[in-house]
Amino acid sequence: MSVREIVVFSGSAHRALAADICQHLGVPLSTVEMTRFSNDCLQAQLQANCRGRAVYLVQPLVPPTQEHLMELLLMVDAARGASAESITAVIPYYAYARSDKKDASRLSIGGRLVADLLVTAGVDRVITMTLHAPQVHAFFSVPVDHLTALGVLADHFRGQDLTDAVVVSPDFGNAKTATQFARLLGLPVAAGSKKRLADDRVVIDAIVGDVHGRRAIVLDDEIATGGSIVELLDRLREQGCEQAAVACTHGLFVGKAIERLRDHPMITEVVMTDTVPPPVNRPDDWPQLTVRSVGGLLAEAVARIHAGESVSSLFDGVDPTLGPPQPRLFD
Amino acid sequence: MSVREIVVFSGSAHRALAADICQHLGVPLSTVEMTRFSNDCLQAQLQANCRGRAVYLVQPLVPPTQEHLMELLLMVDAARGASAESITAVIPYYAYARSDKKDASRLSIGGRLVADLLVTAGVDRVITMTLHAPQVHAFFSVPVDHLTALGVLADHFRGQDLTDAVVVSPDFGNAKTATQFARLLGLPVAAGSKKRLADDRVVIDAIVGDVHGRRAIVLDDEIATGGSIVELLDRLREQGCEQAAVACTHGLFVGKAIERLRDHPMITEVVMTDTVPPPVNRPDDWPQLTVRSVGGLLAEAVARIHAGESVSSLFDGVDPTLGPPQPRLFD
Amino acid sequence: MSVREIVVFSGSAHRALAADICQHLGVPLSTVEMTRFSNDCLQAQLQANCRGRAVYLVQPLVPPTQEHLMELLLMVDAARGASAESITAVIPYYAYARSDKKDASRLSIGGRLVADLLVTAGVDRVITMTLHAPQVHAFFSVPVDHLTALGVLADHFRGQDLTDAVVVSPDFGNAKTATQFARLLGLPVAAGSKKRLADDRVVIDAIVGDVHGRRAIVLDDEIATGGSIVELLDRLREQGCEQAAVACTHGLFVGKAIERLRDHPMITEVVMTDTVPPPVNRPDDWPQLTVRSVGGLLAEAVARIHAGESVSSLFDGVDPTLGPPQPRLFD
Amino acid sequence: MSVREIVVFSGSAHRALAADICQHLGVPLSTVEMTRFSNDCLQAQLQANCRGRAVYLVQPLVPPTQEHLMELLLMVDAARGASAESITAVIPYYAYARSDKKDASRLSIGGRLVADLLVTAGVDRVITMTLHAPQVHAFFSVPVDHLTALGVLADHFRGQDLTDAVVVSPDFGNAKTATQFARLLGLPVAAGSKKRLADDRVVIDAIVGDVHGRRAIVLDDEIATGGSIVELLDRLREQGCEQAAVACTHGLFVGKAIERLRDHPMITEVVMTDTVPPPVNRPDDWPQLTVRSVGGLLAEAVARIHAGESVSSLFDGVDPTLGPPQPRLFD
Amino acid sequence: MSVREIVVFSGSAHRALAADICQHLGVPLSTVEMTRFSNDCLQAQLQANCRGRAVYLVQPLVPPTQEHLMELLLMVDAARGASAESITAVIPYYAYARSDKKDASRLSIGGRLVADLLVTAGVDRVITMTLHAPQVHAFFSVPVDHLTALGVLADHFRGQDLTDAVVVSPDFGNAKTATQFARLLGLPVAAGSKKRLADDRVVIDAIVGDVHGRRAIVLDDEIATGGSIVELLDRLREQGCEQAAVACTHGLFVGKAIERLRDHPMITEVVMTDTVPPPVNRPDDWPQLTVRSVGGLLAEAVARIHAGESVSSLFDGVDPTLGPPQPRLFD
Amino acid sequence: MSVREIVVFSGSAHRALAADICQHLGVPLSTVEMTRFSNDCLQAQLQANCRGRAVYLVQPLVPPTQEHLMELLLMVDAARGASAESITAVIPYYAYARSDKKDASRLSIGGRLVADLLVTAGVDRVITMTLHAPQVHAFFSVPVDHLTALGVLADHFRGQDLTDAVVVSPDFGNAKTATQFARLLGLPVAAGSKKRLADDRVVIDAIVGDVHGRRAIVLDDEIATGGSIVELLDRLREQGCEQAAVACTHGLFVGKAIERLRDHPMITEVVMTDTVPPPVNRPDDWPQLTVRSVGGLLAEAVARIHAGESVSSLFDGVDPTLGPPQPRLFD
Repeated sequence: MSVREIVVFSGSAHRALAADICQHLGVPLSTVEMTRFSNDCLQAQLQANCRGRAVYLVQPLVPPTQEHLMELLLMVDAARGASAESITAVIPYYAYARSDKKDASRLSIGGRLVADLLVTAGVDRVITMTLHAPQVHAFFSVPVDHLTALGVLADHFRGQDLTDAVVVSPDFGNAKTATQFARLLGLPVAAGSKKRLADDRVVIDAIVGDVHGRRAIVLDDEIATGGSIVELLDRLREQGCEQAAVACTHGLFVGKAIERLRDHPMITEVVMTDTVPPPVNRPDDWPQLTVRSVGGLLAEAVARIHAGESVSSLFDGVDPTLGPPQPRLFD
Repeated sequence: MSVREIVVFSGSAHRALAADICQHLGVPLSTVEMTRFSNDCLQAQLQANCRGRAVYLVQPLVPPTQEHLMELLLMVDAARGASAESITAVIPYYAYARSDKKDASRLSIGGRLVADLLVTAGVDRVITMTLHAPQVHAFFSVPVDHLTALGVLADHFRGQDLTDAVVVSPDFGNAKTATQFARLLGLPVAAGSKKRLADDRVVIDAIVGDVHGRRAIVLDDEIATGGSIVELLDRLREQGCEQAAVACTHGLFVGKAIERLRDHPMITEVVMTDTVPPPVNRPDDWPQLTVRSVGGLLAEAVARIHAGESVSSLFDGVDPTLGPPQPRLFD
Repeated sequence: MSVREIVVFSGSAHRALAADICQHLGVPLSTVEMTRFSNDCLQAQLQANCRGRAVYLVQPLVPPTQEHLMELLLMVDAARGASAESITAVIPYYAYARSDKKDASRLSIGGRLVADLLVTAGVDRVITMTLHAPQVHAFFSVPVDHLTALGVLADHFRGQDLTDAVVVSPDFGNAKTATQFARLLGLPVAAGSKKRLADDRVVIDAIVGDVHGRRAIVLDDEIATGGSIVELLDRLREQGCEQAAVACTHGLFVGKAIERLRDHPMITEVVMTDTVPPPVNRPDDWPQLTVRSVGGLLAEAVARIHAGESVSSLFDGVDPTLGPPQPRLFD
Repeated sequence: MSVREIVVFSGSAHRALAADICQHLGVPLSTVEMTRFSNDCLQAQLQANCRGRAVYLVQPLVPPTQEHLMELLLMVDAARGASAESITAVIPYYAYARSDKKDASRLSIGGRLVADLLVTAGVDRVITMTLHAPQVHAFFSVPVDHLTALGVLADHFRGQDLTDAVVVSPDFGNAKTATQFARLLGLPVAAGSKKRLADDRVVIDAIVGDVHGRRAIVLDDEIATGGSIVELLDRLREQGCEQAAVACTHGLFVGKAIERLRDHPMITEVVMTDTVPPPVNRPDDWPQLTVRSVGGLLAEAVARIHAGESVSSLFDGVDPTLGPPQPRLFD
Repeated sequence: MSVREIVVFSGSAHRALAADICQHLGVPLSTVEMTRFSNDCLQAQLQANCRGRAVYLVQPLVPPTQEHLMELLLMVDAARGASAESITAVIPYYAYARSDKKDASRLSIGGRLVADLLVTAGVDRVITMTLHAPQVHAFFSVPVDHLTALGVLADHFRGQDLTDAVVVSPDFGNAKTATQFARLLGLPVAAGSKKRLADDRVVIDAIVGDVHGRRAIVLDDEIATGGSIVELLDRLREQGCEQAAVACTHGLFVGKAIERLRDHPMITEVVMTDTVPPPVNRPDDWPQLTVRSVGGLLAEAVARIHAGESVSSLFDGVDPTLGPPQPRLFD
Repeated sequence: MSVREIVVFSGSAHRALAADICQHLGVPLSTVEMTRFSNDCLQAQLQANCRGRAVYLVQPLVPPTQEHLMELLLMVDAARGASAESITAVIPYYAYARSDKKDASRLSIGGRLVADLLVTAGVDRVITMTLHAPQVHAFFSVPVDHLTALGVLADHFRGQDLTDAVVVSPDFGNAKTATQFARLLGLPVAAGSKKRLADDRVVIDAIVGDVHGRRAIVLDDEIATGGSIVELLDRLREQGCEQAAVACTHGLFVGKAIERLRDHPMITEVVMTDTVPPPVNRPDDWPQLTVRSVGGLLAEAVARIHAGESVSSLFDGVDPTLGPPQPRLFD
């Protein structure tokens, strides 16, 4: 198979990332005519031949999430009807992963539902990054290439003086990832401990691990309103930690997140990747924000998939210990 | 089965219609807690027991269409997970019926896709009204009860003096329905003839049938921007028709539709049904507008479905000729 | 992929067309041994290796329709069991497209059912021509290449003196296609207007468009008994049109159709394509009949599918305006 | 559930049997309007309300087999679209069971294909009798109630003088059933031994078991052309057996079967059941033929299914040893 | 529906639990004849009528796990073929939940696979307890009633003097459940903090929360080899905690687990439920072990399912705060 | 496609056969890490890249059958999740074929169930040998390449002096295969005739065909306990046959089979193939036993499948009459 047989389309969610992936691949970003009718229905027309091609559709599920999901489903439908050989949905941010369990009676489980909808529309494979819970992988009945942005984020900090730095996870759910990240940087790790005050109110009430006099590198998979981060910083300060860098894969920054983080006295910098569109257009809008691109990583994954090469080995070189861990279900 | 085993929920698209259906049925409208998360994902929690119940979910696909579609899919998912015995989607306006064919290469066909998505989510049956094309019925792999609002609209005009009135269809695609409607009222029928000037421009260039000196009752299945109606009225005036009532099942009235129709000198009144929420809140906003309710019709269909009675016979009494026509594929 | 990887089989419906397609493709027509057992069951044995091949099964659904459908289903089953890489059903005439909606209660919808049966048997793609309604395309859950014979039919008339000719559609349902056809020939268009006398009786009661003193080219998608055509000719004569050529894609000519058309004083010629087997064997049986072949068109479609080229562009050269129209769901 | 909730329809294959079943059940045989269009397509309209009903569709797959199969599939489709609660296909003779294996390369396996087609159309359960091979049961992915007519056939002989009688199976494939039958009558059993002369020619070349001077009761599951029976009789005569009664479940009697059997000097009588329509209309056409009805048996099965009672116990009373044998996969 | 329409079968995994459930329900435990053939294949024969019945199949997936899984699948297959109205798999211990993510390349995800296998066999609903991760719920495409044994375990401790007691979770993954448990008993909570030394070695290196001088109630969802528990106890002792009760839902106790826990000087008692068969037969084999039954809880769930009552409300009375928490995906 | 694109894995059932197939193919046998967790669950990790590869998984279903089946299902799941292009299960011995019909009420049919489970897990094609009944082929909804070992077994005897030899089938079910085998060797054929004494007891009570003074070559598809063989030998001796060779495809030899056959005075040799692992490790454990390898045959089938060549023609050269017989459903 030659790379010319790859056709890449982008929905309206994040055209810049799609263009970046295409540039790395050396293929053009093909055009989609997305029409909105007067009754608000959407219609997708793919403007490049899909017949017998490996079609890649780039669309992170960022707000307006329902619009972007429907765009994606319609592009999949159009590609299938156009006799694509295979259809891969490139969803760097799979928003519905947050809806992964039934915390209460008669609750929808959107993470599984949306996975099934994508397969019904005709998706053959999914490429995604940093799912909120690793179990969401198994919600899909088609193969999923689940990539990590840890190497990209670690690269950002490698050039810095990391003396006295410590990686901090806002909670224990994310602590395993924080530990991997810390190992990439040769740093210790700490974590916030959450306490549920009432059914509808959770606070971070303690920090496990030594952070006194250290510079924190707070790592989270996703930052939405930024509330948890601010709360964590309060606890860090109480423990004698005065400065923090904030790193995340998915920088949604909705509501008052930008104000909260930009104006916080402890935060020296914020690093995110471009799995989602960056929240500001000009660097001087938020000078402390750095956006690291995952476009090259996604392009490499696409190229390897197309060439029939291993995607997991894509992460082999980053760090010896970042290779696939040995499976140990019981310890 | 007793009527108590029916549980009715409404999405946010048209709660008033759902409440009306419930009142006719004598059952409460059960509550849905629809949560929107900071990443814009939706989550539905059904607040009434669904186990072993016949669940009805009322949601016309009106703008914002994608939001309402996702709400519906999530409610279906929640009902299925909650062991509902059967799940019926009551979709009085199935917006995606407009996307019913492949006019061009590599085009999505939303009408079929959305039908498949609903079945994937868990829908067992669909109740809908006045699909844009009758073939859309067969896009669903589950039973569909396809109701007509013609009787309801005809009732509106029966009390009027219909001397010299003529039913007019804006185009020939809708002419068969207009003929049925005319027969219900004992009136003649006429139709606009469309001409395609270029691929992207269609005009009504003629009227077939005698309209001179008559009062027109223009009948359309759906009115969105109102552009076609206004163009039809121009042609009618050229043919000596000076006055028109406008009737439609689905009164979306988007864009400048309200201004166009409210201010048109030829229009004496506009009649729509409440398959979609009426476009205005107070009668004096648009005094010529009358909204006829299909709530009773939908409730009766639900009751008959639940009792195992024929739904088609629901339309027997309206008019002898409105009964199911004999199937004649070839003439 | 090389063309040698294509294997073509024919059921008994129209072997001549299959042979013609193969000749254009430069591949042999492989043999099927179709056995009928003493209990009237059929069994298909494909006599050429299918393993890893792109298998094409040619079978228009002409009478005896059920026999030909079952032959097709059994050939699909045999190809699937024989590890074909892909199975394409080439159904130039999809007869069950006529059964596309539920005109009455408790009616089968054969158009959707047969589409599902084909997919169950193992069909991966369908090539068809001139479906009775464009919505039938979406009855299939596999890709459909829906070809048009308009270019083939137009070629027939291009060599003629078309002065004073007018394209006439028997009804408005087919008028859009007639308009496309008229544009290919640079001619005006007219259409018959049908009126339903009773539920079981429809008559053509008017002609829209100027036909006086002109020569009509009547265009229909399919001619079965020929009753509608004869009725249209009566109306045309009343309007001062004395002569007509009749053109159709699917020339079934069942019942008294041949007598009706051959002996009609107004008809100068009848043109059909060979999507179905021609009704007569020798030219002198019906000298006014011309059969234009779609074998080359179907072969070109197969070749393009196999080469991963666009099929829609197959129609680009015919006429600039015959290219895929821009999708406009609402005007 | 009450018996009024049962709705029974019949295709055109064997209306008399359907009427007989209905009479036993005390329910009316509801009407199907089966329309054949000018292009030979079929369309089914069920003329009784199916909503929430247990629908039974009676149709043995007798010649013309393809027509009857399509009728059945269309009736199933109509019942499903009409919201039937469950759809049971009553197929007393499942003709395609003969196509149950792949004797040769690239062969269709109609027995499995037709089972899948029925399920695709919407069948929930199948009632059948005396499948050609018991493994065909497992071709269906829905429950099958597989009845036997052995008791009915045994009843016929119980009133006779069976001194010196012997049950004879034409081959060893059917010998197990013949042994069950012999046990019901308290008789010994013998069987023909087939020898394959060439790939396309099989002869019965020996009789295993003592038949000298005895009266044979030849038992076969199905008689089509009667060729095997005649050949068996030749061998029996060579072994000193001069007289034979012939019994079968499915008496198709196609080709020269009637002449062969009616005029054979050794045959004293022929007994069949009415799983298929009897081959002659008047008793004096073939006086040696007796038709035993399975209508009561099928009706009892329907009644038990509807009442949630065991169907297997239906055969308990016939003979103690005819109860379900203990499963022994290995001896 | 009456309770007589429930039929309960048990595989060989845990017949005592099935009998206990039946006793609570007041229905007999029906018999399954499970045959093992000489080639080691299994075959299930259900010895009670299933037709139209609600069938419940009780089988926790305890070792030998593959045998018990296949038994369950075969029982489901038999029930489906026997026309059961619904089939509920009661799997109090779903062992394959441990295989819920893809920690490494090319790894099977047994938790999702087994869920799909059960649905393929014919399962309509699953009742289970205390899944290893709550996301496993969404691996099933059929409704799951996911029960908790927390109330049963809490009842055990309610009669004791709980002064100075503290609930301890071995790790943070289980801490949320431990917090719920602590609230039921009005106790504080602590948790072990795990540290990954190498990819294949994890140790508990710290205790978060005050345990000095307190009596620990260690709570885990499942205890297999007991290694983690022993390691936790070492850390607890280092923190000044000298005594511990151990409680778990699933007490597998494989390998040296019994010796480790029975002989540990700090352990005063071990409490498990009977979701799996208890590891010892006589109380004096392990006097510190108490087995609390969940049979009543499972029976109540079955009864509510059958009566169409809410199962979630089953846990309402235990404690006001144990009711379904409000869903909060983001904080 | 090149042979390098083939990846072969073996479960633990028969690694030697897999290695042999790989040697014939000239590809390495890739490694599977099969982990058994403390709760007895299995997990498969494929240690070679599967992306875009044709994956072959070798695993006959020998005892412990459930373990080997689950291993196979997990390997399939892992290969599917790892984006294998196609997954072929090579199951030389499909044990569950024995469970192919419903001999009794409410019985599981394992042969169909396991076929469906394999497809659910993701199998695209099955290669198997000598199914117990040919109908089991149609239990699979994916293509099956059903090979025969007759040629391999015949080769064994071709070098011997076959004067006065006769091929003997233990029963008539296997007689057709014995006849094919006899023709390969130019020998006559005989068969045992089974008689059912009671429902649970079957004896061989006669031999059809002349065996007096001849040397028997007893042919069976599978030998488990050897009971039938010993019984057959008793009958043969009674008929004056004093010596026998025993040949079978699947030599399971469970229970006392080895003792029974090794020590039987009439048996001169036993020949089996290695579709299953041979029962003994050293030749001197059972000197009369010869194991003929089917590894080359399976490798050739894999190579042909991969090259898109006919597999059926693989058997053409063995003997002119062993080619695919002409299908004759009725004689």
